[in-house]
Amino acid sequence: MSKISNRVSVLGLGAMGTALATALVHADHHVTVWNRTPGKEAALTAAGARSVPTVAEAMDAELVIVCLLDHASVMDTVDTTPVPSGTALINLTSTTPNESRSLAEWARGREIPFLDGGIMATPAMIGTEAGNIIYSGDNAVFEAHRALLETFGTADYLGADAGTAATVDFALLAAMYTMFGGFQHGAALASTAGMSASAFAERAHALLGALLGTLFDEGREIDAGRHTDPAQNLAFTKKAVDAIVRAGRDAGIDNAYLEPTRTLIDRAVAGGGRELGSSALYELIRHP
Amino acid sequence: MSKISNRVSVLGLGAMGTALATALVHADHHVTVWNRTPGKEAALTAAGARSVPTVAEAMDAELVIVCLLDHASVMDTVDTTPVPSGTALINLTSTTPNESRSLAEWARGREIPFLDGGIMATPAMIGTEAGNIIYSGDNAVFEAHRALLETFGTADYLGADAGTAATVDFALLAAMYTMFGGFQHGAALASTAGMSASAFAERAHALLGALLGTLFDEGREIDAGRHTDPAQNLAFTKKAVDAIVRAGRDAGIDNAYLEPTRTLIDRAVAGGGRELGSSALYELIRHP
Ligand SMILES: NC(=O)c1ccc[n+]([C@@H]2O[C@H](COP(=O)([O-])OP(=O)(O)OC[C@H]3O[C@@H](n4cnc5c(N)ncnc54)[C@H](OP(=O)(O)O)[C@@H]3O)[C@@H](O)[C@H]2O)c1
Ligand SMILES: NC(=O)c1ccc[n+]([C@@H]2O[C@H](COP(=O)([O-])OP(=O)(O)OC[C@H]3O[C@@H](n4cnc5c(N)ncnc54)[C@H](OP(=O)(O)O)[C@@H]3O)[C@@H](O)[C@H]2O)c1
Repeated sequence: MSKISNRVSVLGLGAMGTALATALVHADHHVTVWNRTPGKEAALTAAGARSVPTVAEAMDAELVIVCLLDHASVMDTVDTTPVPSGTALINLTSTTPNESRSLAEWARGREIPFLDGGIMATPAMIGTEAGNIIYSGDNAVFEAHRALLETFGTADYLGADAGTAATVDFALLAAMYTMFGGFQHGAALASTAGMSASAFAERAHALLGALLGTLFDEGREIDAGRHTDPAQNLAFTKKAVDAIVRAGRDAGIDNAYLEPTRTLIDRAVAGGGRELGSSALYELIRHP
Repeated sequence: MSKISNRVSVLGLGAMGTALATALVHADHHVTVWNRTPGKEAALTAAGARSVPTVAEAMDAELVIVCLLDHASVMDTVDTTPVPSGTALINLTSTTPNESRSLAEWARGREIPFLDGGIMATPAMIGTEAGNIIYSGDNAVFEAHRALLETFGTADYLGADAGTAATVDFALLAAMYTMFGGFQHGAALASTAGMSASAFAERAHALLGALLGTLFDEGREIDAGRHTDPAQNLAFTKKAVDAIVRAGRDAGIDNAYLEPTRTLIDRAVAGGGRELGSSALYELIRHP
């Protein structure tokens, strides 16, 4: 099998793989697609992509982008097929940091240039300005294919550790899921006073939007290890959170989303942190 | 003691009471202030406020705004002093919904027109466009003093139940504390891959900001009781959250902020909710 330059393959035509391949076709790359189950390639081949029935044929490319379900499906797919010398691999499947590192290890053993990525976007955002993918691992792969990767949206290289992109990806998702959980908790509490979730969304949108900028202050406090936020100390916050917990109990809702905050504050206060700012709680999360 | 019209009193010169009284003085109201401990009134009296040593003297006003530490301090202060007939009371102390309702009950027994409020602002925001206070209780008090209340910022009346403002206030604070907790969790996880909290704040700010608009979709799904979000079902979300939990464990951080989401998803999936959207979790919070 001879290596053909300027060719990119996408393994996996789920919602995300399809979005990635579509963006590449629209950017006039020579795109080869493969999916385990046939039948998902019609729109792509109509748009100019080449569909192949085997992984081995898809590996005949300069760059192979893998976007499957999980780590196991990636290993099922790539570990059974020889990768031609010089072909670079980019994994955009969501895997844990350690799974990304083990995939990098696997690639290193086979001398496959490897980059791992975390997709901070929905399929609809791919190929638009809102699409953002973060990468870590072999910087040479990133630099060689940077222009191609930017067809998906913004592309950020975070470092040589292949686990970094997945870590930051998961860290952002943790913040996202928790924010949505807090919204649902608030909507549930507000509904006990007759407010609709849509009306609550208006207010939550305004308040959280107004407060997002203070994440930078929190970040600075954490980096400085200072935690001496003057406006509201943990003694104040404890009183507020305990009252909100009481209100949730009175209203008969599940208070689970407040438990981490309540527990961490109690631990910090017990440790003498009454006068510290809430960023002090970070230390208890980071070093339990 | 004769009642003087167009006079407003502020009980409590903590950080917030001082901000409220200052805004009123700047708006040229006749402002009387009282604080349990003397010595906090100097700047206000210099700006034109009248300071009085007893609560009874402060009650000699058309409107009395109470902003103390908590419910107990409010009862300590107002229950010991006769309130002149016609004087309206607005409580801006943070109290639980049931405490606000019991204060309204107390006021009703004394025929005191009563409004409860929740301050959705820091002291620095009072008197600016960013200041927002929500009210519930006696609508006549709100309408009679609306213009005065708008000197603090925007003023929203939410309904006749005196507990509504406190409920919505607490619901918003619950969403806020949880969002900050999620940020800290994310910052802790990201730091295990060498990312500073400030760098993480940049990314969290961008992602959460981009996603805030979807709170409206969530609100609509919840109000419709639909939960059939097509993009990501709970089976998908469960896989993602379980992986993030695994990553947190691998990285040695406290995973507490992910527990509510993980637990609720497991319960929803066990109840047959695999194909539902994440707004289905709301039901489990609302009706545990
Ligand atoms: N969708 C999003 O919003 C989003 C956002 C960020 C990241 N991601 C990540 O992107 C990846 C793909 O997501 P998606 O939305 O495209 O998922 P999807 O629509 O469920 O597609 C899953 C893909 O994986 C393939 N697959 C599953 N098991 C396999 C196996 N053992 N061997 C070979 N192929 C296998 C499926 O092939 P078959 O057709 O043969 O089943 C399909 O192509 C996931 O890791 C996801 O976490 C998705
Ligand atoms: N600060 C904020 O960012 C903020 C935001 C929203 C809502 N709030 C709410 O606004 C209220 C006041 O907050 P703050 O920041 O002004 O608090 P603060 O600076 O701690 O002031 C507390 C005030 O309560 C008085 N007080 C305490 N116990 C009392 C008692 N038993 N009898 C009479 N007076 C008593 C204090 O008087 P002494 O001077 O005599 O101690 C002081 O005037 C609180 O309910 C708070 O939750 C504050």
